[in-house]
Amino acid sequence: MERIEVTYAVTVEASAIEAKAQAIAVEQSVEMPVGAIADRRILDEVVGQVRSIEPAGPGRFHVGIGLAASTVGTDPTQLLNMIFGNVSMQDDVELVDVVLPPALLGSFPGPAQGVAGLRHLVGAPERALTCAVLKPQGSSSAELADLCHRFALGGVDLVKDDHGLADQDAAPFAERVAACQAAVVRATAETGRPTRYAPSLVGTPRQLSRQVAMARDLGVEVVLVAPMLVGLPAFTDLVREDLRGMAVLGHPSFSGATRIDPPLLFGRLMRLYGTDAVIFPNHGGRFAWTREQCERLAEEARRPWAHLRPALPGPAGGMTLERVPELLDTYGTDTVLVLGGTLLATGDGLVEATRQVTRLVAEHAT
Amino acid sequence: MERIEVTYAVTVEASAIEAKAQAIAVEQSVEMPVGAIADRRILDEVVGQVRSIEPAGPGRFHVGIGLAASTVGTDPTQLLNMIFGNVSMQDDVELVDVVLPPALLGSFPGPAQGVAGLRHLVGAPERALTCAVLKPQGSSSAELADLCHRFALGGVDLVKDDHGLADQDAAPFAERVAACQAAVVRATAETGRPTRYAPSLVGTPRQLSRQVAMARDLGVEVVLVAPMLVGLPAFTDLVREDLRGMAVLGHPSFSGATRIDPPLLFGRLMRLYGTDAVIFPNHGGRFAWTREQCERLAEEARRPWAHLRPALPGPAGGMTLERVPELLDTYGTDTVLVLGGTLLATGDGLVEATRQVTRLVAEHAT
Repeated sequence: MERIEVTYAVTVEASAIEAKAQAIAVEQSVEMPVGAIADRRILDEVVGQVRSIEPAGPGRFHVGIGLAASTVGTDPTQLLNMIFGNVSMQDDVELVDVVLPPALLGSFPGPAQGVAGLRHLVGAPERALTCAVLKPQGSSSAELADLCHRFALGGVDLVKDDHGLADQDAAPFAERVAACQAAVVRATAETGRPTRYAPSLVGTPRQLSRQVAMARDLGVEVVLVAPMLVGLPAFTDLVREDLRGMAVLGHPSFSGATRIDPPLLFGRLMRLYGTDAVIFPNHGGRFAWTREQCERLAEEARRPWAHLRPALPGPAGGMTLERVPELLDTYGTDTVLVLGGTLLATGDGLVEATRQVTRLVAEHAT
Repeated sequence: MERIEVTYAVTVEASAIEAKAQAIAVEQSVEMPVGAIADRRILDEVVGQVRSIEPAGPGRFHVGIGLAASTVGTDPTQLLNMIFGNVSMQDDVELVDVVLPPALLGSFPGPAQGVAGLRHLVGAPERALTCAVLKPQGSSSAELADLCHRFALGGVDLVKDDHGLADQDAAPFAERVAACQAAVVRATAETGRPTRYAPSLVGTPRQLSRQVAMARDLGVEVVLVAPMLVGLPAFTDLVREDLRGMAVLGHPSFSGATRIDPPLLFGRLMRLYGTDAVIFPNHGGRFAWTREQCERLAEEARRPWAHLRPALPGPAGGMTLERVPELLDTYGTDTVLVLGGTLLATGDGLVEATRQVTRLVAEHAT
């Protein structure tokens, strides 16, 4: 009887934790009064089992639940349903860990490119990677392409669309992607560095398929997708079918990640579902994540895990040029630094500011 | 300049609320230092605008933000990105209201069947509807079909799969749906009441399309889908393309709804995206929602709203037979009562217990 081992952090009084743990085990499996189940096999093999209850601070416990692997099979959507379907609505429950049995884990391809594939794509075998961001939304395709060109002249590895760029009138997808891709190709001819442009894919599954086809035809090899915004099931189809051979930068939009432990959601689940580089809000920026959470996230994204390629952590959000050395010390070289507003704020100094960053990154590696 | 008017509940000290409101307006629009934007048009027409800041309890405020409608167009996925993309990751921000401008609102078809369509489908023009649930997972298709038959003999309007039923070995989708659909058809021939079976759809978009095609071929006219589990973008394709003419019961799985105000998420967003009946955890059950939240949710689901058909609220979770009269008093007749474990716990008394409920519902209407 294979089990998926799930850990929840539960906020509850000590006197109530055993009943609560049992309630979670039932909620996330048969979801009915156990006393009303007559079938011995279902009681033994299907009902969730409380494996462990451990204190995790005042009024807080880690509860280990074993869920029958047979209730998931190899269905990526059903996995979410089983590990966090109903308890996602309980304020006092947070999802903090998942251990998959080998057959289920083996059914996930994970990142198609991973750290090595991304490094190969931008011709940077060792140092940290850099990623600039095209903003603000409302700009025309020509303006964004010009920015793209200047970032590439500054030597960044990747230029990604702001996640807010979709298929809007100001810069329609087809027009914008053609213009920006042409801009990096032109810059690459000038600099000799293979800067890559990553357009933002936003839409329903059918729209996403059309966007990928368009981007692929234009020679795009990296895309930006927010897995929780498009939904992990749609993301699964996207990476396994539409995006074959391409690399994915994962954006955290719509993740509401405070209910799933960020290192688990970004470091493990996003990687499991196939993100090559996980962009996340760095500590000390606009989001309340701690340094410890961010470091754990980065470690999870890269550490050896079955057959899954490592993913590149991408700290972002409220970055400043001054913080680049600290970031490199914290995250090391298997990292992509995502720089948006801080470079854009330099206006005409953009190429030079970008060069400063890429120089710091190059020096750090040596 | 059309704007989407969004309201966030923000937990912050009074001295910091103005800066925080401005930060949200920027985060959810251009996401870069406003001072670095030279283009007057973008400053005037694209950057989010703080419309109002109002106290909402100690250390809590309602912040109204106007987001440019042009940044969304009519893209359902981009709407989520703009209204709750990045701030979903900020612990102190909760999404509580959204008002869409007419063109954007008009682009959403909403529920295809709505209250009237569901009533027509089960031949119940006035009284509350009833919905029984097939559990536990791990049962065989034959066992579930037998349950289905007995519930239908008890006179329920709808029999839905537990949301935990997917395409598992114990009861594979194709086999289960064929057996359960045949069971309700047989029962309907016996009782003369048109009980409908609603299979649970779980999978990636491509799997969902295949499941709908199979179900449709078998004569299924109602399905169960968890919009947040499959993702609202995939749900959009599903209802607008695959499910044409069918009705959708929306399950709350994976909604982590505590970060989006439940009445907004279930009463408004789920309806906007096309759920005909929104199943939600009733107060006093296993989830911490208040009676006031549940009543507001039900009101939102049914109240007149542009061209959108009303959706049927479906209180569920920890229901007991004793609570049926109270539920009918609370939610009235435009409601579907969802009964799972409480009926299943009666074992051999299931048909009779089900009849008790359907009798109470019939009597309440008169």
